Amino acid sequence: MISQKWKKLVKSLHQKKYRDQEKLFLVEGEKPILELLTSNFHIEKIFVTDLFLKRNPNFLQDFEILSASELAQISAMENNQMALAIVRQYENKPLYPDNNIILALDNIQDPGNLGTILRICDWYGIRKVVCNNQTVDLYNLKVINASKGSFLRVQCFYTNLQNYLKYCVENFSEALIYASTLQGKSVYEIKFQKPAILIMGNEARGISKDILSYVKQEISIPRPKGGGAESLNVAIATAIIVDKFFQNFK
Amino acid sequence: MISQKWKKLVKSLHQKKYRDQEKLFLVEGEKPILELLTSNFHIEKIFVTDLFLKRNPNFLQDFEILSASELAQISAMENNQMALAIVRQYENKPLYPDNNIILALDNIQDPGNLGTILRICDWYGIRKVVCNNQTVDLYNLKVINASKGSFLRVQCFYTNLQNYLKYCVENFSEALIYASTLQGKSVYEIKFQKPAILIMGNEARGISKDILSYVKQEISIPRPKGGGAESLNVAIATAIIVDKFFQNFK
Repeated sequence: MISQKWKKLVKSLHQKKYRDQEKLFLVEGEKPILELLTSNFHIEKIFVTDLFLKRNPNFLQDFEILSASELAQISAMENNQMALAIVRQYENKPLYPDNNIILALDNIQDPGNLGTILRICDWYGIRKVVCNNQTVDLYNLKVINASKGSFLRVQCFYTNLQNYLKYCVENFSEALIYASTLQGKSVYEIKFQKPAILIMGNEARGISKDILSYVKQEISIPRPKGGGAESLNVAIATAIIVDKFFQNFK
Repeated sequence: MISQKWKKLVKSLHQKKYRDQEKLFLVEGEKPILELLTSNFHIEKIFVTDLFLKRNPNFLQDFEILSASELAQISAMENNQMALAIVRQYENKPLYPDNNIILALDNIQDPGNLGTILRICDWYGIRKVVCNNQTVDLYNLKVINASKGSFLRVQCFYTNLQNYLKYCVENFSEALIYASTLQGKSVYEIKFQKPAILIMGNEARGISKDILSYVKQEISIPRPKGGGAESLNVAIATAIIVDKFFQNFK
C-alpha cells in the first residue's frame, strides 16, 4: 500500500508549481523508466506493478509494489499499467554555443511540440536547448512522454531569452543566430554556418519582436505551388530546418 | 437553450461509433469554423456564443446561440469558448494515383500524428491520403484540431490497404510504391519518381509485413553520427521524406 505521504507528493507533482518547489518530476511507463535507469538522473522512488515485475524479472533497482488501481490513482497518464518514478530535476545551468547548433525556443506552448522537438534534437545530436521562461515546462509529463526518452540526452536551459542572446552576441560573436520566420531566406538556399543558434517561435505568433533584433539570418520554408496550409507545425518546421543544417555539413 | 435532441446528438458524436452511424462529425473553435464556411462541407448546425458573435458581427450563416457554459457541456474540447458545428462527413471514395504523390498510412494510431500529417500534405499540395481501416478516425476531434483546417483540403480514403496496393500494382503500374522503413535506402540518395505512393507505418511497429511485399523502394532517414534517439516521430519522418520528394522535382 502506498503511504499517504507518497501519494500526496506524486499527485502534487502533476502541477508545475510543486515540481518547481520540490525540484522533482514524474516519469511513467515501462520503457521510459527502463531507459531512465541507464541515465545519470537521480531517482528518488520507483513504484511498479506486478505486471512490470513479471515483464522485468531481473529488475534490480529498489522499488515499491503497487496494485494497478493504486497506480491509476496517482498516475497522470490515462493508461499507465506499469510503473512510475519520482525523479530529481537537473540544475538549470547555462548552455553556451560550441561547434554545433543550439536550439532556442521562444514561447513554445504545446507540450507535445516540445517533446517532439527534443526527440528531433536527440536524433540529430543537438544536445543543448535554450527555452525562454514562458516555454512549456520540460518536466510536464506530456513533454517527457512525447520526447520518447530524449529528455535524458538533450539538456534544456530556461532563461530570459533576450538577455541570453545579448550575452551570446557579446561573448560568442562567432555563433550565427538564425530564426525561423515567415519572411526569411529560403531554407533550400541557405549555406548554414557553425556554431549556430536556431530560434523557433510560438505556435501562433512566431518569434517575438524583442528577440528578432538579435537575429542575423531569418529562414523560411517556402510553401510549394499548390500547397494550401497556412503554416507548418513548429516541430515539423524545426525538423526540416535542422535536417538542412546537418545536410550542409555532411 | 439547446434542446435535448441536439445535446444528445452532439455528445454522441464524441464517439466514433456514432460518428460512423450518423455520418456526422464535430468541428469546434472560432478559426476552424470560419474556415469551414469557405469549404464545400455540408454544415448541419452551428452553435455559437455571444463572444463569437461579438468577434464576428457579420456572421451570416444560420446559427443557434448558446451560453459559454452550455457550450462547455457539449464540447469535446477542454477550452472551447466560441463555436461548435455539426458537419456531414464526405463519402469514402477511392483515391487513385495521379501525377503526384499519394500518402498511404498503415495503422497510424495517434490523432495528433494524423492531424499533423494532413497539415504536412496540405502544405506540399498532396491532396490524397489513403488510410488502412485500423488508422485513427479522421473525424476524431483531435485529428481535426491538429490538422489546423487541412482536413478541408486533403481527402482521406479508408480501405483495406493491402487490397488497395494490389489494385494499384495491377492497374496503375506506373506508380512507384515507396515505404519508410528502418532498412531502406537513404532518403538523401534517392532519386524520387512520380507518380508515387509513399507508405508510412505505425508509430511503434512500422509497416506491416503483408504491406511490405508491395513496396518497390524502402526509404530510411539515416541518423547522423552522435544522434541518440531510437527513431523519429512518424509525422516528422513524413515531413522529411515528403520534403525531399518535392525538392527532387523543383
